[in-house]
Amino acid sequence: MIYFDNSATTQPYKEAVDSFVKVSSNYFGNPSSLHGFGEKAERLIMQAREQIADHLGVRSNEIYFTSGGTEGNNMAIKGAALMYRNRGRHIITSSIEHPSVKEALLQLETLGFEVSYLPVDSYGIIDITALEREIREDTILVSIMHINNETGSIQPIGKIGDILKSYPKAHLHVDYVQGIGKVPLNIAEHQIDLCTISSHKFHGLKGTGALFIRDGVHISPLLSGGNQENKMRSGTENTGGIVAMAKALRMTMEEMKANGGQLLSIKTYLMKELGEMEEVIIHTPVEHAAPHIINFSIKGFKAEVFVHALEEKDIYISTTSACSSKHTSVSGTLICMGVAEKIAKSAVRVSLSYKNTMDEAKIFVTAVKKTIIQLRKVMKVK
Amino acid sequence: MIYFDNSATTQPYKEAVDSFVKVSSNYFGNPSSLHGFGEKAERLIMQAREQIADHLGVRSNEIYFTSGGTEGNNMAIKGAALMYRNRGRHIITSSIEHPSVKEALLQLETLGFEVSYLPVDSYGIIDITALEREIREDTILVSIMHINNETGSIQPIGKIGDILKSYPKAHLHVDYVQGIGKVPLNIAEHQIDLCTISSHKFHGLKGTGALFIRDGVHISPLLSGGNQENKMRSGTENTGGIVAMAKALRMTMEEMKANGGQLLSIKTYLMKELGEMEEVIIHTPVEHAAPHIINFSIKGFKAEVFVHALEEKDIYISTTSACSSKHTSVSGTLICMGVAEKIAKSAVRVSLSYKNTMDEAKIFVTAVKKTIIQLRKVMKVK
Repeated sequence: MIYFDNSATTQPYKEAVDSFVKVSSNYFGNPSSLHGFGEKAERLIMQAREQIADHLGVRSNEIYFTSGGTEGNNMAIKGAALMYRNRGRHIITSSIEHPSVKEALLQLETLGFEVSYLPVDSYGIIDITALEREIREDTILVSIMHINNETGSIQPIGKIGDILKSYPKAHLHVDYVQGIGKVPLNIAEHQIDLCTISSHKFHGLKGTGALFIRDGVHISPLLSGGNQENKMRSGTENTGGIVAMAKALRMTMEEMKANGGQLLSIKTYLMKELGEMEEVIIHTPVEHAAPHIINFSIKGFKAEVFVHALEEKDIYISTTSACSSKHTSVSGTLICMGVAEKIAKSAVRVSLSYKNTMDEAKIFVTAVKKTIIQLRKVMKVK
Repeated sequence: MIYFDNSATTQPYKEAVDSFVKVSSNYFGNPSSLHGFGEKAERLIMQAREQIADHLGVRSNEIYFTSGGTEGNNMAIKGAALMYRNRGRHIITSSIEHPSVKEALLQLETLGFEVSYLPVDSYGIIDITALEREIREDTILVSIMHINNETGSIQPIGKIGDILKSYPKAHLHVDYVQGIGKVPLNIAEHQIDLCTISSHKFHGLKGTGALFIRDGVHISPLLSGGNQENKMRSGTENTGGIVAMAKALRMTMEEMKANGGQLLSIKTYLMKELGEMEEVIIHTPVEHAAPHIINFSIKGFKAEVFVHALEEKDIYISTTSACSSKHTSVSGTLICMGVAEKIAKSAVRVSLSYKNTMDEAKIFVTAVKKTIIQLRKVMKVK
């Protein structure tokens, strides 16, 4: 099996699963319990919080555990909007955000908030001058992703942070789900106020994630109740999942150092080989792009057909993002980048992890070439 | 170790942990992915949904997976309130709900909703005539728990359902977190619209739960995004946790049939033995109470002191609920029942599971007696 769908989800590290099992079986006490058995679980969570904060270069009291990326994004956006609604009701985002950002903002629009959507260029990078034009005194939130989940394009978070320095009321939220462990982001330097990560995107377990909330920034909690997580996110903590996330993040950070070069080599090889195929149009930019995502169209073939054809060769890639893959609609991100609808309908995404090898990439390239020929015969194209 | 804190959380069944490991390791694909590897995960979720629906006596399309009880309660309450806010803004609840209900409603009050709190009698049972008085044409939601998490008192959900038949605009939400697998609840017969369960309360894993939403009832999603869970709850599904929940629920339901009598015998024994101690005041009613929770005060001792003293004997119980145990405030539930503040400060909770034995109960009774004598000496009481 060649698994090239790592932006949808990753295989959990065996070590992360082992940690989960050990913690869930032996330290199953409720971290909020008064007794020592609960306190043991609480200590494990505290350690995990410190480890994750260290990797992000932030303070441990700025890390809040969530059930994943979607919760993190909803919690940040809805929470900040409701908290600061008396200061203003204007929010800025990009036109290519993940559905968990986009849909959260659509809900806020029905509650009286106004949202401006920044356009992107043909490389999938937001127009920074548009941000300067759109930002206002009543802008309370700017939510821009770090790495686009479909194309891998890297957004200019540093420049955004610079612009926001003149607008202290505007909080900056960054969806860091695709970037963490692949493309470093300096949360402190860029003055990010809210930052979302998801464990299953870096070989941790599904159902766990974290939201960074800068010290001094407040949100109205999405999940209120027992006041866990410093009152920002109630609910019994998933101790095992949290410890597994800390472990997976450490391992991913180590892999980034050790194998970051190899990951980029594989991507560069794939970009070159795919780029030389006359049927292929690559949408991922050469510069300002993450080392693990390649989005490309194979002219004349519907993306679904190509994904299923590769699947028969035990190779797994995706059409755009997993969250949108079962809807027939075409990728909004590619349309925003100016890609023609017909071409966008042929777009597929390869997304790598540090577990992938150059050998797999070579098998993949051969498989793509063969699949094009096979499908041509079947479909009698040409 | 004698673990009598099962209302805070339970030890996961080994079989549930094993299911989680198997699914997370072998079927880690994103259930939303187009390819067959993702579809395998989706099928596992579908099976789990059907199994859980069967146990609850509802349809599988009425089960929505969540990250736990707090999310389920917040999702039901905030989601229904926001969805139906144009029909009315009045909500009814009891004065002894779990913090995840209470706090969600407090947030709604800041958004312009009006909440009526029904009083309870000295047994911790809501005043059903108060519901008849408070309900109005603009009541859109009634949220009443099934089993109180602190005292084990069973609320008259059937009678509430009967009253609501005359108020079709008023939706009924039931927090079933403490009751499931212990005290059957007929969701369909009582015309419940929304019903919350949490996996880690019945030996499943933390970070997973489900919300029943009756076919035809709508909510405004709390977590919006990729439109998983029929658009009601976005976010990549925790496949392993969901499969583990289905397994844990089946096992718990089997245990309820096989060992329900034994559980009640243990509770009856404890009620009798504790009731005979002159220092003890039992708050859990004899009738209309769950078979696994006993709430009692030991006069003259602070609850925390007693919990810690038993802990030294490797026995784990709690002060009121886990969610409130680290706050110094006294139990609101007991105060609402008319218990004097001084007595409420001495209240502890024993909560059983099917894993507990009569031998443990006997050791516990002896330990309580000894602890009272020991603490008297130390504190020079009398």
